[in-house]
Amino acid sequence: MRNEWLERLSLDEQMLLLDVLFTQQYALEIISCELSDIERGYKYVDEARHQKLVQLYHRIHEELSL
Amino acid sequence: MRNEWLERLSLDEQMLLLDVLFTQQYALEIISCELSDIERGYKYVDEARHQKLVQLYHRIHEELSL
Repeated sequence: MRNEWLERLSLDEQMLLLDVLFTQQYALEIISCELSDIERGYKYVDEARHQKLVQLYHRIHEELSL
Repeated sequence: MRNEWLERLSLDEQMLLLDVLFTQQYALEIISCELSDIERGYKYVDEARHQKLVQLYHRIHEELSL
């Protein structure tokens, strides 16, 4: 289920937001916050989303070395 | 100039990252960090980008009431 806030932003706005996320070097931080919420039981997500988040964390951390 | 990290993520990964950004309610936070870096002179951006950031901040804050 796509986030309803996200759908109300234009593509340009979404790209600007992502760009700032990386320039502020927060990408890894927010994914690890989400993973820790899931792994400590504060948030329930299906296993597919959980795996995608774990993969994205490693992609950003290892491949983009952030 | 698009962020080179951003271009190395798939569209799905970009959308997942944006989705987490909103579920963690960090969107407003990172834009205000970027604006404060600019306004305190720690970061130089052209005026067009600065205006886009200010507009995006108000969009998210007022329209999305985050």
